[in-house]
Amino acid sequence: MTASLNNIVALLTQQENVTVISHRSPDGDTLGSAVALGLALRQAGKDVDFLCHDQIPQKFHYLFAPAPEWLKRKEDPIAAAKGRFLIAVDVADPKLMGDSLQALSDQIDLCIDHHKMSVEFAKVTYREADSAATGEIIYTLLCQMGTTITPEIAGCIYTAVSTDTGCFKYVNTTPRTLRIAADMVESGAPASDINRWMFDTITRGRLELQKLALETLEYPYDGRCVTMVISREMMKQAGASGEDVEGINGIPRQIDGALVGITIREKKSGGYKISMRSQPPVDSSAICAVFGGGGHVGAAGCTFDEPLECVKEKLVKAVGDYFTAHGIL
Amino acid sequence: MTASLNNIVALLTQQENVTVISHRSPDGDTLGSAVALGLALRQAGKDVDFLCHDQIPQKFHYLFAPAPEWLKRKEDPIAAAKGRFLIAVDVADPKLMGDSLQALSDQIDLCIDHHKMSVEFAKVTYREADSAATGEIIYTLLCQMGTTITPEIAGCIYTAVSTDTGCFKYVNTTPRTLRIAADMVESGAPASDINRWMFDTITRGRLELQKLALETLEYPYDGRCVTMVISREMMKQAGASGEDVEGINGIPRQIDGALVGITIREKKSGGYKISMRSQPPVDSSAICAVFGGGGHVGAAGCTFDEPLECVKEKLVKAVGDYFTAHGIL
Repeated sequence: MTASLNNIVALLTQQENVTVISHRSPDGDTLGSAVALGLALRQAGKDVDFLCHDQIPQKFHYLFAPAPEWLKRKEDPIAAAKGRFLIAVDVADPKLMGDSLQALSDQIDLCIDHHKMSVEFAKVTYREADSAATGEIIYTLLCQMGTTITPEIAGCIYTAVSTDTGCFKYVNTTPRTLRIAADMVESGAPASDINRWMFDTITRGRLELQKLALETLEYPYDGRCVTMVISREMMKQAGASGEDVEGINGIPRQIDGALVGITIREKKSGGYKISMRSQPPVDSSAICAVFGGGGHVGAAGCTFDEPLECVKEKLVKAVGDYFTAHGIL
Repeated sequence: MTASLNNIVALLTQQENVTVISHRSPDGDTLGSAVALGLALRQAGKDVDFLCHDQIPQKFHYLFAPAPEWLKRKEDPIAAAKGRFLIAVDVADPKLMGDSLQALSDQIDLCIDHHKMSVEFAKVTYREADSAATGEIIYTLLCQMGTTITPEIAGCIYTAVSTDTGCFKYVNTTPRTLRIAADMVESGAPASDINRWMFDTITRGRLELQKLALETLEYPYDGRCVTMVISREMMKQAGASGEDVEGINGIPRQIDGALVGITIREKKSGGYKISMRSQPPVDSSAICAVFGGGGHVGAAGCTFDEPLECVKEKLVKAVGDYFTAHGIL
C-alpha cells in the first residue's frame, strides 16, 4: 500500500518502539536519512534502534555522534527487530537489506524511498521518485512531524542530499535539493566539514588504486566509451577498500568526450561487477538491462561470471549497439 | 566612493554605452558575472561591450552564446573603451585587469566585487566581502534592476556561484549561495551541463599529467604534509595545459591526514611556483609569507628561483616550523 505523507506522520505517531533500517553497503543517503529519522523519532519520545547488514564505514561515524549505540552491530538482528515497528529507509528492494536481514523482508512496516526502479515489499510504502535523495523526503516528513531540526539532524539530512547528488553536481539535483541544503546549513549542519570528509579526502589506498587503474583505461569508439578495470590483485597491491573503489569508479565517464564510462571490478567471489555511468543522451540502465542489470539513466550496474576479456567484449558491443540504435555512431 | 545597491541601479540607468571588464586569467565568477550583467544591461536597452586581457578559454565559451561578439579580442582595447561607462567585475585590484588594460585602471567608473583583500581604484565601488561570489551580488543587482532572468543569464549566474564555491563544496558557501543556485536552476540554467563541463570533465592531458605527478608524492611529518612536483618535462610528456595543472594541484591536500598540501610546479621561465593548500588549523598564507608569498588561509602561494631539492627542503622546513610553533608536531 502506498500512503501520503500525512498518513505516514499519523502512522509514526502511534508507534512506541521503532527500528530504522539502512541498505547494505550503506551510503550517505541511506545512513543520513535513517539517522535523521531515528533522531526525530527519539525526539518525539519513541524508543529507537538502528539496523544495517554491514559495518558502518568510519567516514560515516560522525552521523551517529548523538546515538553511538546505533553503530554497534547486533549479534542477532532478527531477534533485535522482533515486535518493533520496522522502517526501511532508501531501500528499493528487500534484497538490498542484505543477507543478515533477509528474514525481515516481509515484516517491514514502512518503506521510505526515492528510487524509480523498485520492488514493493513493505506493508506501507512512501516513495517520491522525483526526489534526488531519500533525505529530501525525510526532511519534508520531519517538518510535518514538527521535529526541531538540530545541527545533528541537519548534518544527517545535509549528508543525505549532498552525497546522493555528488555535492549538488549530478543531474538529479533540483531547486528543492538546493533549498533543503540551504535550510540545513542555516540549521547548523557543519557543511564544509562534511564536504571535506565526503568529497575532498582521498585515502592512500584510493590513490594507489587510482594509479594502477588509470593504466587499464581503454577508449573504444573514439573515446565515446571509456573502460577501466579494477582487479583483486590491484586492490591487494594498493591496500584499497570497497570505498576506495567508489571514489574512482566515476573516472571513466569524466574523461573528456566519454558518453559512457564503465568500471569493471573483479568480485571477491569471482566474476565481475560493472558500474556504468553515462551522460545524455545515453541511458546506462538500458545498456545494463541487456545483461539483467539496472539502475538510473546516468548510473547503472550489472554483473558477469565470465572471463575479463569476454566481459569487456560484451559490454563494448552492447554500448556500440546502443550507439548505433540511437544514431550516436 | 562606496555606494548602495540602489545607487548602483540609479547610476546604471543613466548610462547608454557600457563596457564590462573581467579580470585576467578569467574564471567562472568574473566571466559569469560580467556576461550576466552585460546581458541585463543589453536587455535594458544599453549598448554593451566586454573586455578581458586574456583570450577566453574554450570551456567558458558557452557563457557568451547570446553575445558571441564579446568573445572577439579588441586590437586596441583602450580605444574601444573610450567614452564608455566602464564596469570592472570581480576585480579586487586594478593590476588584475592585466597589462593590456592597465591604462584604464584610473578610468573605471564602477567596480563590483566580493574580495576581502582589495584595492580601491574605481570611481564607485560596490563590494560585499561576505558573498561567496561576485555572481551573488550581480543576481541581487539584476533583481533590483527588474531584469528578466533568462535561461542564459541564469546559466551565467549559476556558473559564477558554482565555480567560486567548488560546486557548493567550499567553506565560503552560504545558504544564500545555495538559494541563488536554486533560483537559477528554476530560471532554466542548464546546471547539470554546466557542472559536467566545469567539474566533471577530465582532459586526457590532465589524466596523463596526474599519472606522472602521483609518482612524485612525498609524505613528510607522517603525511601531515604532502608534496607533489609538476615539472616542465612532465607537462610536455602529458601534453598538459595550465588548466590541467589547476585540476590536479588540489590533490596533495586531499590526501587523508594531510593538513598541508604543496604542489611545486616548474615555471616556463625557470624556478618554481608553489601552490599551497591547507585545512584547519593550518594557515597556508602564513607559511607562504615566509617566502614573500601570500593568499588565503586555505590556499596560498609563493615562488622560488632555486633548484628543486632546495625548494622542497625549505618548504618542508617552513611547514615543520609552523607545525612546531602551533603545537601540531
